[in-house]
Amino acid sequence: MTVIMCRDAVGTVKMNELTINLQTKSGIPLYEQIYEYIKNDIRCGRMKSGDKLPSTRALSKHLDVSRSTVELAYEQLLSEGYVEAVPYRGYYIAEVEDLYRLDPMKTRETTVTGRKAKDYLYDFTPNGVDLNSFPYNIWRKLSKESLVEDRAELFHLGNPQGEYGLRNAICSYLHQARGVNCSPEQIIVGAGNDYLLMLLSTVLGQNHKFALENPTYRQAYRLFLNLSYEVCTVDMDSRGMNVAKLKESGADIAFVMPSHQYPLGIVMPIKRRLELLKWAQEQEGRYIIEDDYDSEFRYKGKPIPALKGYDSCEKVIYIGTFSKSIAPAIRMSYMVLPEPLLETYKEKSSFVNSTVSKVDQLILQNFIENGYYERHLNKMRALYKNRHDVLLGALKKMPGVVRISGENAGVHLLLHFKKGITEEELVRKAEEQKIKVYGLSEYYVESPAETDATILLGYANMSEEQITEAVQILKSAWKI
Amino acid sequence: MTVIMCRDAVGTVKMNELTINLQTKSGIPLYEQIYEYIKNDIRCGRMKSGDKLPSTRALSKHLDVSRSTVELAYEQLLSEGYVEAVPYRGYYIAEVEDLYRLDPMKTRETTVTGRKAKDYLYDFTPNGVDLNSFPYNIWRKLSKESLVEDRAELFHLGNPQGEYGLRNAICSYLHQARGVNCSPEQIIVGAGNDYLLMLLSTVLGQNHKFALENPTYRQAYRLFLNLSYEVCTVDMDSRGMNVAKLKESGADIAFVMPSHQYPLGIVMPIKRRLELLKWAQEQEGRYIIEDDYDSEFRYKGKPIPALKGYDSCEKVIYIGTFSKSIAPAIRMSYMVLPEPLLETYKEKSSFVNSTVSKVDQLILQNFIENGYYERHLNKMRALYKNRHDVLLGALKKMPGVVRISGENAGVHLLLHFKKGITEEELVRKAEEQKIKVYGLSEYYVESPAETDATILLGYANMSEEQITEAVQILKSAWKI
Repeated sequence: MTVIMCRDAVGTVKMNELTINLQTKSGIPLYEQIYEYIKNDIRCGRMKSGDKLPSTRALSKHLDVSRSTVELAYEQLLSEGYVEAVPYRGYYIAEVEDLYRLDPMKTRETTVTGRKAKDYLYDFTPNGVDLNSFPYNIWRKLSKESLVEDRAELFHLGNPQGEYGLRNAICSYLHQARGVNCSPEQIIVGAGNDYLLMLLSTVLGQNHKFALENPTYRQAYRLFLNLSYEVCTVDMDSRGMNVAKLKESGADIAFVMPSHQYPLGIVMPIKRRLELLKWAQEQEGRYIIEDDYDSEFRYKGKPIPALKGYDSCEKVIYIGTFSKSIAPAIRMSYMVLPEPLLETYKEKSSFVNSTVSKVDQLILQNFIENGYYERHLNKMRALYKNRHDVLLGALKKMPGVVRISGENAGVHLLLHFKKGITEEELVRKAEEQKIKVYGLSEYYVESPAETDATILLGYANMSEEQITEAVQILKSAWKI
Repeated sequence: MTVIMCRDAVGTVKMNELTINLQTKSGIPLYEQIYEYIKNDIRCGRMKSGDKLPSTRALSKHLDVSRSTVELAYEQLLSEGYVEAVPYRGYYIAEVEDLYRLDPMKTRETTVTGRKAKDYLYDFTPNGVDLNSFPYNIWRKLSKESLVEDRAELFHLGNPQGEYGLRNAICSYLHQARGVNCSPEQIIVGAGNDYLLMLLSTVLGQNHKFALENPTYRQAYRLFLNLSYEVCTVDMDSRGMNVAKLKESGADIAFVMPSHQYPLGIVMPIKRRLELLKWAQEQEGRYIIEDDYDSEFRYKGKPIPALKGYDSCEKVIYIGTFSKSIAPAIRMSYMVLPEPLLETYKEKSSFVNSTVSKVDQLILQNFIENGYYERHLNKMRALYKNRHDVLLGALKKMPGVVRISGENAGVHLLLHFKKGITEEELVRKAEEQKIKVYGLSEYYVESPAETDATILLGYANMSEEQITEAVQILKSAWKI
C-alpha cells in the first residue's frame, strides 16, 4: 500500500491512499483504471468530500505513468461530478451524495408464462421469416457507418413523418416494385403497422365503421375495436371481399389485403379491385386500407401492381412493411396517405413524433439505396420459391386433400380437405407427431355456416429437407 | 475484349463475352466484381435467358483467379435468382423479368417548409439536449456487439412490452434513482411518449375526462384531444395543480409533471403530491399520469422521489423517457402501469407489437447495466449544472426582471418581468438581436386573466461562453 502525502494550500495535511494496481495488459486504458479506482474509493467513502487529490504531477510520478494519463482520469472524475477543480489549488473530492449510483440489479428469473412454445419438431407457422438470411454483415457495416461522431443531428428529433431520404427511397421502391406513384410527402414511416393504424385513427377521427375480410388478420380487427371503432366483417368469395356485401354493411372504411389475402392467400383480380375502388368513390369519406404485407414474394406470373397503383381518386391508404421482407424486429413500416387525409394529418396529427430512430432510418435508407435491398429481395424470393416448390411437390397424394390454394405467392398455402374430416382432428394428429399446423378457423371473426377442414402451412421458416420430412410425417399421421 | 467459347451438353455453342476488368486494389472482393459484372450484363440484356455461363474452371483460368472465387460469384448469382444450376450441365441465365430491379431514384430537392429555422445567433430553446456529449463511441461499440450473426432471435418479434432485460434494468434505475418500486412486469417500453399515450388510451378506453395543468406541455393536450377525449385544464398555484379545482373539473384522469413542471418549472411539494393521490383514491377509475420528463437533472437539495414512489394505492401511471437524458432521436420511453390497468392491458392491448427494435433495446440495456448510463447521467448533470450556474450568474441585474423561477432543476428557467413590459416586446427585441427566447403564453391552453410577462430560457444547448454572451446582448436589448 502506498501512501501519498500532500499539503494543501491552507496547510492542512491530507493523506490519500492510492493503491492502484495498474494492469498494463488488461486492455483497459490506464486512465480508465485510475478513474475507476478513485471513483470507487469515493463511492465507498474511503475518500471523503473535501479531501484533496494528489497533484497530477505527484500521482503520475508515483504511478510511473505519464502526466496526461492522470490528467485524463481527473478530467473524467471532474466531468462526472466526483471531484471539483479549485483554481490554483487543485482537485477536491466533491459532495457526492446526490450523484447517481446505479448498482446493477440482479436479473430475476424470467417467468414468461403463456408464451412457452410447445416442444414441436416442425412448426409450419404462416408468420415465419427466414432470419438465417438476415444480412448481418451489411447491417452491421451500415450501422457502424451511421454512428459517426460529427453527425450530432442524427440524435436530434427528426421529421415526424420520417426522414426525407428514407421516404424518398421507399417512394422509389413503390414506384418500381409495386406500381405505386406517390410522393415522399405522402409517406409516413412508423414503428410497425399497429402504430401506423393508431396514428391513422387520430387522422380519421371517430365515427367510422370498419369492414374487414372474414377470415382476416385478427390483430387488425382487435386493434380497430380497441380504438373504439364499430367493426364488422364481410364475407369473401374466390376473388376477395364481396363488394355487394360491403355496401350492405354500411361501413365506410374497408381493410383489405389484395396482393395475398391473409389467411386465404387470394390474389384479388383486377376486376374486383376496380369494383372496390368504385365503391370508395361512390361516397365521400369512404376509404380503403390496403395492407400489402407480403407482396414482395410472388413466384409465378407477372407481379400485380398494388391496389394503390390504380387509385386515381385518392381513396387508398397503403400500408407496407419491412417486417416480412427484412425482419419483424427492425420495426419499420410505412403508410401512404391519399391527399385529403394527408392534409388532415398535417393539420391534426403531424405534431406526433416519429417512432423510428433516425439511425435506424438511415441504415434502412442506405440499405435500399446501395442496392442491398434489391439483392436481399431477390435472394429471399429465390429461397422461398424453392421451399414453396418443394412443399408443393411433397404435398402430392396427401391423404384427404382435395385442393390446394393460396400458392404461388407469400409464404404460406392452404390445404382443403374432403368432407368428414375435421380441422381439430388434423391439428391434433399433427400435434401427436410433434408437428404444428394451423387451422383456418382461428382466423374467422365470425364462423362461416359450414366449411370443409382447411389447414395453413407456412414454409418461410423451414429448410427444404425439413419440409420434405415434415410432410412425410403428416402423410402417415393424416392417413385415414 | 475477351471471348470465351463454351459448348454445352447438348452441343449448342454459346458465346459469352466476359470482359471483366478486375481491380485487385479496389477493396471490392474479386468475386463481388465478377458477380456485379455478370449481373449487369444480364440486367441490360447482353446475356439472355437460357444462355449458358462458362464453367467455373474455364472462367477461373481465363481470369486468372481461383476457382472458388468464380464459384462464390456464381453462388451469389444463383441465390439471387439470376442464374439457374442444371445438374451435370452447368449454370444458365434464368428468366429474370420478374426479378427486382430497384434503380436508385434521384433524391429530389428537399422542400421542407414551415420548419426552417430563422437565422438566430443563439437559441434558448427549453427543449434542448446537449448532443455533443452523446456517447458515440460507447453506443457504436454496444451496437456492434449486438449485431452478431448467431443471434437470429434478435430479429424475431419481441415481447410486446419490451424485452425483459431492458425492463429489468429500467426497474432497477427507477428504484435507485426515482424511489419507484415496481416490477419489470409493470413496465411497457415504447417508441416515445406520444406512442405510449396512444397505447394507454387503448387500455383506458373512451369516456374519460383528462385534466392537464395550465400552462402545460401542449403536445400532450393536443394528443388527448386527437384521441377523442374530453380534455380540460386546471389552474396551478405555486405548488402545482390546484386539487380543489381539479375536483370541480369533473375530470377522472390528471396529467401532471411533479418533478419539474413544464413549462413553469415548479417542483411539487410532498403535501400537494399527497393531496393529489388522495383525490385519485377518492373514486374508483381515477388515475394520475405522471410525466417525469426531465427528473434526471436536479442541482440543489436531495432528489425528490417520483410521485409514483408514494403510490401505495396503484393510482399513478408513470411515464419516463430517455429523450432528455440520452437523446431525443433514440425514441425510447417507458410507462409503469398500476396493477388494475396492467390487467386490462394484458387482456385488451398486449397483442400490440412493441415499437422499439430489439437491437436498440439491447444496446440500451447494456448501456444501463454496464454503468455507462450512470456515468452519462453524472456527466450531463455536471455539465448542465455549470450552464445553469453560469446563466443564473449572468442574469443578475437583468433589466426589468423581478423574479427568477424554475431554477435548480431541469434544463430551463423562467424570468418574470415587472408590470408594463409585454412578452411580445421582449421576444421581438431579442429577435432583433438574433436571439430566440420563448414567451410563457404559448404554453397556456387557456390564457390566464392577467399575467406579467414571463420568458423561458433553456440552457441545455448552449456553452457557458454562449450563455454569457447571449445574456449580455439581452441585457442591452431589454434595457428600458
